[in-house]
Amino acid sequence: MAALRSYVNGDWHTPTEDGVPLHDAVTGEEVARVSSAGVDMAAALEHGRTRGGPALAELTFHQRAALLKSLASYLREHRDELYALSARTGATLGDSKFDVDGGIGVLFGYSSKGRRELPNSTVYVDGAVEPLGKGGTFVGQHVCTPLRGVAVQINAFNFPVWGPLEKFAPAFLAGVPSLVKPASQTAYLTHRLVELMIGSGLLPEGSLQLVCGSVGDLFEHLTDQDLVSFTGSAATGQRLRTHPVVAANSVRFNVEADSLNCSVLGPDAEPGSAEFDLFVKQLVTEMTVKAGQKCTAIRRALVPAARVDDVIAAAKARLEEVVVGNPANPEVRMGALASLEQREEVRRSLKALLEAGTLVHGDPDHVDVVDADPERGAFLSPLLVRCDDPDQPQPHEVEAFGPVSTVMPYDSTEHAVELARRGKGSLAGSVVTADREFAREVVLGAASRHGRMLVLNSDDAAESTGHGSPLPALVHGGPGRAGGGEEMGGVRGVLHHMQRTAVQADPATLTAITGQWVPGSPRTTTDVHPFRKHLEDLRIGDTVVAGPRRVTEEDVAHFAEFTGDTFYAHTDEEAARANPFFDGKVAHGYLVVSFAAGLFVDPDPGPVLANYGLENLRFLTPTYPGDELTVTMTAKQITPRVGAEHGEVRWDVDVTNQDGASVAKYDVLTLVAKRPENQE
Amino acid sequence: MAALRSYVNGDWHTPTEDGVPLHDAVTGEEVARVSSAGVDMAAALEHGRTRGGPALAELTFHQRAALLKSLASYLREHRDELYALSARTGATLGDSKFDVDGGIGVLFGYSSKGRRELPNSTVYVDGAVEPLGKGGTFVGQHVCTPLRGVAVQINAFNFPVWGPLEKFAPAFLAGVPSLVKPASQTAYLTHRLVELMIGSGLLPEGSLQLVCGSVGDLFEHLTDQDLVSFTGSAATGQRLRTHPVVAANSVRFNVEADSLNCSVLGPDAEPGSAEFDLFVKQLVTEMTVKAGQKCTAIRRALVPAARVDDVIAAAKARLEEVVVGNPANPEVRMGALASLEQREEVRRSLKALLEAGTLVHGDPDHVDVVDADPERGAFLSPLLVRCDDPDQPQPHEVEAFGPVSTVMPYDSTEHAVELARRGKGSLAGSVVTADREFAREVVLGAASRHGRMLVLNSDDAAESTGHGSPLPALVHGGPGRAGGGEEMGGVRGVLHHMQRTAVQADPATLTAITGQWVPGSPRTTTDVHPFRKHLEDLRIGDTVVAGPRRVTEEDVAHFAEFTGDTFYAHTDEEAARANPFFDGKVAHGYLVVSFAAGLFVDPDPGPVLANYGLENLRFLTPTYPGDELTVTMTAKQITPRVGAEHGEVRWDVDVTNQDGASVAKYDVLTLVAKRPENQE
Repeated sequence: MAALRSYVNGDWHTPTEDGVPLHDAVTGEEVARVSSAGVDMAAALEHGRTRGGPALAELTFHQRAALLKSLASYLREHRDELYALSARTGATLGDSKFDVDGGIGVLFGYSSKGRRELPNSTVYVDGAVEPLGKGGTFVGQHVCTPLRGVAVQINAFNFPVWGPLEKFAPAFLAGVPSLVKPASQTAYLTHRLVELMIGSGLLPEGSLQLVCGSVGDLFEHLTDQDLVSFTGSAATGQRLRTHPVVAANSVRFNVEADSLNCSVLGPDAEPGSAEFDLFVKQLVTEMTVKAGQKCTAIRRALVPAARVDDVIAAAKARLEEVVVGNPANPEVRMGALASLEQREEVRRSLKALLEAGTLVHGDPDHVDVVDADPERGAFLSPLLVRCDDPDQPQPHEVEAFGPVSTVMPYDSTEHAVELARRGKGSLAGSVVTADREFAREVVLGAASRHGRMLVLNSDDAAESTGHGSPLPALVHGGPGRAGGGEEMGGVRGVLHHMQRTAVQADPATLTAITGQWVPGSPRTTTDVHPFRKHLEDLRIGDTVVAGPRRVTEEDVAHFAEFTGDTFYAHTDEEAARANPFFDGKVAHGYLVVSFAAGLFVDPDPGPVLANYGLENLRFLTPTYPGDELTVTMTAKQITPRVGAEHGEVRWDVDVTNQDGASVAKYDVLTLVAKRPENQE
Repeated sequence: MAALRSYVNGDWHTPTEDGVPLHDAVTGEEVARVSSAGVDMAAALEHGRTRGGPALAELTFHQRAALLKSLASYLREHRDELYALSARTGATLGDSKFDVDGGIGVLFGYSSKGRRELPNSTVYVDGAVEPLGKGGTFVGQHVCTPLRGVAVQINAFNFPVWGPLEKFAPAFLAGVPSLVKPASQTAYLTHRLVELMIGSGLLPEGSLQLVCGSVGDLFEHLTDQDLVSFTGSAATGQRLRTHPVVAANSVRFNVEADSLNCSVLGPDAEPGSAEFDLFVKQLVTEMTVKAGQKCTAIRRALVPAARVDDVIAAAKARLEEVVVGNPANPEVRMGALASLEQREEVRRSLKALLEAGTLVHGDPDHVDVVDADPERGAFLSPLLVRCDDPDQPQPHEVEAFGPVSTVMPYDSTEHAVELARRGKGSLAGSVVTADREFAREVVLGAASRHGRMLVLNSDDAAESTGHGSPLPALVHGGPGRAGGGEEMGGVRGVLHHMQRTAVQADPATLTAITGQWVPGSPRTTTDVHPFRKHLEDLRIGDTVVAGPRRVTEEDVAHFAEFTGDTFYAHTDEEAARANPFFDGKVAHGYLVVSFAAGLFVDPDPGPVLANYGLENLRFLTPTYPGDELTVTMTAKQITPRVGAEHGEVRWDVDVTNQDGASVAKYDVLTLVAKRPENQE
């Protein structure tokens, strides 16, 4: 059996030794061998830094997002191949979809987030302009730029496709090259995934590397610009995190480790209620999907003391129906654990759990299997434990990484919160209840020890993605025992790969650095109205100044009548004076912005296609009849759309009165056409 | 001499041993003794968690912000006392103001940020609602809740007031109690600061504790809910960060350590130019303020090769004028280092630097001092080093923590960026140039190794706060060698003390949890128009539905004529049809929102005082003549203002047409009066 190759330094590297055999979880046959012998780790890191990083830096966020989408589509076409290999890890087709389709979904999700929430440039601007001096000549703003290192991604065995992809997508979007190190047990599937990704030809060379086998001396070569994302055991995470090179260089180190996730049944959910059934169904699902080998699976089921018997009876009834065996058989609901070693590990953990409770379903040493040899495959029965004394430490500390959960009673809402918190840091928790107040108390009470919390009830059950599913738009990770890490969460996960830098400068220089017009910067006015410029011809700072227009008492009265907005401040002099903010009748804010549009607009057909929105409008000074309004409108941000005939232009608008005071400030959002020759 | 007391467990604790003597930096006299002997560290942490945390949890962000403001005012009244003790650390009055007034400024800054940028509640909502299902019954959003532990704040000797306050302010605002551990050398000043803070009576018991002396076994008792902010040497930071309890519990650990900050002179800045003078002046200021004992001071001056001689000559001329001596003498420009040990440390570092360069100003073994004994006080001359080969490692690696800088040449912009990056992670960098393109290239080129970068030129010099000044609105910290930490940065620094949790639920439950109305949640309509309700009577979800109103062709034509907005899409049927987004003449977006206001407004005087703004407006469906508009307006967020007669109400507005399609969605911001009896 040939050893898996690594992809480093732009080439596929065959290990210089035989490697360790990996076995099919179902049949026990050797699937592949794994070793990183001969891989030059220092060179691989340097290849990422000097080849992959600069290649990604040439691309804008939107271009990277477009590549992620193409990659996702490419992988979707090849997913049957991945399913087939996935079955050898013990996964049912459902499990495989969870892993493979879930991973592809992360790529699509990040592609979408990247195009919608990141600019079409290489610098991310974080937060507002901060005034640092009263005169407006000194301002600050934060920019995020990619770390110029490599994202070393050490993955766990249980999600050989989703794991690498959920780490790769935000790194790639940030502009940071990835070096993927799969767990050996299931490395053959990640290996095929990376072969496909490299084979797609979509990724710039150096932006993705693969090391199958051990990390060797890789950690010795990390710098302050590299980062590590680790998913795996707490012990290994702890050892790597305290590596002297990591500590000396303050290498960013993201850990996802053990997690004793809880699911809390609300006191409202009586047997027969929708929530009771949802709770039991979800518990059994979480025990059996991926044979319970999910960092997010429910390990602790917390139920009102009076409901323990009912919950256990209902869960047992469902567990009885779980068919275990060869995942190739469509009747099989739960496949094998990833390896025989893993099964031994779970048996050991179960033994510890049983010091505090009793086994109420399943037998760790025997399970009936379909279409498979129970001795050669890593099969295990679902195992439900009952622990009547939730003050025992074991259920809150022992993670049996398999189809194992413990049911425990709680006495009150406070008690439920306290028990939920005893996980000392979890990736995911859930509350199954129709009682919103109970949901609020448990979620806010336990939140500081949870990365994600789900409230499940009959309102959201049909669309709920479930307790155990991390989603690309939401953060994945948890404090304390769970490792203290945070991944995904949309743009947040991208920013974890970038350095935030506070920039202080005069407005014009800040504009030059961020590529977004900062108030106080020079404005460019020419004879050509900026609405007459195509997207490519428009420049940050292009400005139209128009007005003044006098606002008359008749205008205000007429606007009130025409729109129906007869609010007293616009129509009743005496009442308006009594208002703490006005000295008499004032013009409508909507009148001000409407007149402003009348002033700045260039009416004839041209590149500006539509005003699709408006942001950050603040009315700063009241407009009284007789006031004269001038509008100054400046191109602030230009966002060409990849593959579209137009792009977005954000304009800074400042409406001032005859005294030069700002009456209203806001951003106008428009769609502007590209030049005809650039419209695909 | 009595030993400094610690403030732990609600009381002042006198150490159970004599303690280590601390000496006046100027006279060498003993100032105090320091020891933490007898402090029960485990009990102190538990007191913070069980007393301080819950007390802070009772307060909203705005209430905590108000306390910070009161505290700042209180300390300002007592600053002379702090100045007097500060002088004993070797600080001039200018230095003391930098430390004391700077620290008080952080309290004011955080108070202001807290009131403006945080809600008046206890939960911070982070980011937008994420739709998680097509039907809208399952949504997600992130909330931040305070860690339920203690913020252990280990400070450096150089800023005994600013250091503790810049760490305390964001922790307090977040709702996390602080335990302050000053560096021993200058602990007597921090001790007095904390005495004042406790004595003010403003702080809830347990929200601030003080340990003078060593941390003892404190680290043994840290949990996943505690966090550590460390400022000091890289070696100590590294040792504490890899403490087994920190690693095992994933304790958040923020480090600010060594930093070899650079300042780059632009190629445009010829001798005699404003920028040349600014560069030299800033260099000398950074060398001499606090006798160069600033983590942010300029250690590496990077200048165009041809300007090295000029820069050194100009810097020497300024340095000649620096009077060193007893800071009590008003002529003295630079005081003493914090201790004789510190001086020895700087001399050692200088020796290492001189392996790569030559001393061009100052003598490490002799300095003329005013009003002081040069043997007993820790005086040192400013020391300028010239290094003609910037490829030598020492200037980029040896931090001489005193009045020491090295001038080095660069050849090109790329070279300047490369040298700036050789600090391997800095807190602050500056570029002194009037060339915006040069500024852009250096800032973006070096940003991923910098926490803050300043561009200084004649445009911003008058208002610039300078290279070495961290500001509360901007992040302070740096990657790599600088420790990889991040403090302050406005709300960012608050969030570093909170856990971000993704919440998934149905909209109504999410509303209950966040306290902000989420689209899809129930709306409450009654006979009472919500505009008739005072702030205290208004409820999240209170709704007015109004309309329909038909938009006629005449309306559109009239609005065009009245406002002057004769954009072709509103006035020319044929041209509008040619637009890719419209099927014919469309109503103005401003007409839609104006008519919507006409529908939702309740005209008579009442609690709603003004519409002060509008956010997130998106026009989603074109409105054609004949369409009928209905508006639905719902109270989304209610923010009472502490000490004001009103508060802010954010309304969700959804304008729909006769088909039920959303035409426009936006948030309307209003000021709403409190009940008369609650108007102070």
